[in-house]
Amino acid sequence: MHPETIQQILLVRRPKGMPVEEDFKFDQAPMPKPVLNEVLLKTLYVSVDPYMRGRMSDRKSYVPPFQLDEVIKGGVISEVIASQTPEFSEGDLVIGNLGWRTYQTAHEDELRKIDEKLAPITTHLGVLGMPGLTAYFGLLDIGQPKVNETVVVSGAAGAVGSVVGQIAKIKGARAVGIAGTQEKLDFLKNDLGFDEAINYKDGDFYEQLKQTCPNGVDVYYDNVGGEVSDAVLRMINHGARIPLCGQISLYNLEKPDIGPRVQSQLLINSALMKGFIVSDYAKEFQEAEQILAKWVQDGKIKYRETIVEGFDNIIQAFLGLFEGDNIGKYLVKIADQSK
Amino acid sequence: MHPETIQQILLVRRPKGMPVEEDFKFDQAPMPKPVLNEVLLKTLYVSVDPYMRGRMSDRKSYVPPFQLDEVIKGGVISEVIASQTPEFSEGDLVIGNLGWRTYQTAHEDELRKIDEKLAPITTHLGVLGMPGLTAYFGLLDIGQPKVNETVVVSGAAGAVGSVVGQIAKIKGARAVGIAGTQEKLDFLKNDLGFDEAINYKDGDFYEQLKQTCPNGVDVYYDNVGGEVSDAVLRMINHGARIPLCGQISLYNLEKPDIGPRVQSQLLINSALMKGFIVSDYAKEFQEAEQILAKWVQDGKIKYRETIVEGFDNIIQAFLGLFEGDNIGKYLVKIADQSK
Repeated sequence: MHPETIQQILLVRRPKGMPVEEDFKFDQAPMPKPVLNEVLLKTLYVSVDPYMRGRMSDRKSYVPPFQLDEVIKGGVISEVIASQTPEFSEGDLVIGNLGWRTYQTAHEDELRKIDEKLAPITTHLGVLGMPGLTAYFGLLDIGQPKVNETVVVSGAAGAVGSVVGQIAKIKGARAVGIAGTQEKLDFLKNDLGFDEAINYKDGDFYEQLKQTCPNGVDVYYDNVGGEVSDAVLRMINHGARIPLCGQISLYNLEKPDIGPRVQSQLLINSALMKGFIVSDYAKEFQEAEQILAKWVQDGKIKYRETIVEGFDNIIQAFLGLFEGDNIGKYLVKIADQSK
Repeated sequence: MHPETIQQILLVRRPKGMPVEEDFKFDQAPMPKPVLNEVLLKTLYVSVDPYMRGRMSDRKSYVPPFQLDEVIKGGVISEVIASQTPEFSEGDLVIGNLGWRTYQTAHEDELRKIDEKLAPITTHLGVLGMPGLTAYFGLLDIGQPKVNETVVVSGAAGAVGSVVGQIAKIKGARAVGIAGTQEKLDFLKNDLGFDEAINYKDGDFYEQLKQTCPNGVDVYYDNVGGEVSDAVLRMINHGARIPLCGQISLYNLEKPDIGPRVQSQLLINSALMKGFIVSDYAKEFQEAEQILAKWVQDGKIKYRETIVEGFDNIIQAFLGLFEGDNIGKYLVKIADQSK
């Protein structure tokens, strides 16, 4: 029933600046066989995420770099189609940090079972997965929004930012989102209930920021960095908190990232800026997942997904992250479930 | 016994860049008379501090700007020479945020009595006063040094920095000081027990920093900002903490402070940067003063003062702060105690 040959994607060259298709190679390999404690998996969904760009360079980042000529790994949802472990059975759906492959084997320790009755399976790559947890911990542990405070989030229509603004609202704060298209602004205000949404591409962006944050900025959840962040940081209040989640505007920058040094702003405002990665909070994942799931069930957190189909489109989807192509979580659907 | 005319110093022009003598005016006024709940004070010591530069500009800073044509105020130790309040008696020594004046009246609420038996009175402007408390809270609350961690402090030979390094040592960390003269480096290593001290003016400063911090930097207590800080920030470890106490290299800068944006460094290291002002910790001052006094008594914290004499030399001393003239606390002695 399954093919004798699988498809996979290798990193063959470290991108200089913006990645291009030539940095990747579509490759084939024989169908692998699981050994003891392993399963054979059919890939259903591949997640494309901005942080993966960091792993494509060989400089220090969150996580170790990908190796050249090896298969790229990221968040993947798969179906177990053969098992050599009592932990998993044929038909189980699993999530893991797995290869961009149509089929693959994996050790039982690399996988977590997902319950398809609880929520749509793709949510485990989005609002109930790494992006949702990233929003949750960065905002609540570092940002600590209080009632009536102003929370600004950049990259607001993305998988992380869209959850940040909604959690801010749950906590009684005002949520102001920054995004790059009118469609995204409408989504933030009309669908997600952000108080305000503004477009960083507008010539009068800074004026709009001042108008939409008349009481200044108490929390700035930063996904983008660069000049957008420079503008928001000019408006922080005394005691402001700035969780640094991502700097997507810089990931493909070839020259040094030069701009106004932020230290004086932090100093005169007794403000806090902190970087983090979601794995810093691994011990608290389970509790947070339950809280997020409840908020989703209660309709307090809504989500959207941008899903393209086909293994051949993974690279295009990944590159599209840096063009702002997606609203909400960006996924590639590779195959249907068997049943 | 006391003169009929007092001397005072006004701010008559907001400095552009580095302050010059013409920004200030030596002025005279009649000897004031205390009314009910006031005392008449003779100034003994005037403190000159880098933060005062911020108050001379009219942009937002820690504290409100000085008003033009008004007397400059700062840390002052005085002797009560006449009293209209039961709170203070003739001969009492007091400290307060007072004018750069040879004599002045002050309301009882503006003053705190100091006990000359406990420690030399000038320590209340230095190691047991605002600079010592600034070192204490910035390092212990934000920096939180742990045993064997590396603590780097810039402006290390100043009133704040010299205490920072010694508290780091008390907590079992390695202390690396950055200063600008060989005399200061010798003072830090030989007198204060810093593990290492390096000169930011050396051409191979960054190389020296790498050699003296072979395990990277866990805490960077920043008094100076600018390129010195850029270099240290390149070396921070995962989970580093960066208390922002001052940015003296920038206080007289006329152009925007441009440099490498620090966000990516903080992000990939899950590092924290936080500005503060000592008054954020006002509720904890009393406890901290007792701890600092004990450390001084036990010889665990040593201090040095740079004292010049004469009211006429206040401006020169203040300007000298930005030339690195002082080792330890910089004070101007105005008069002897009466008894």
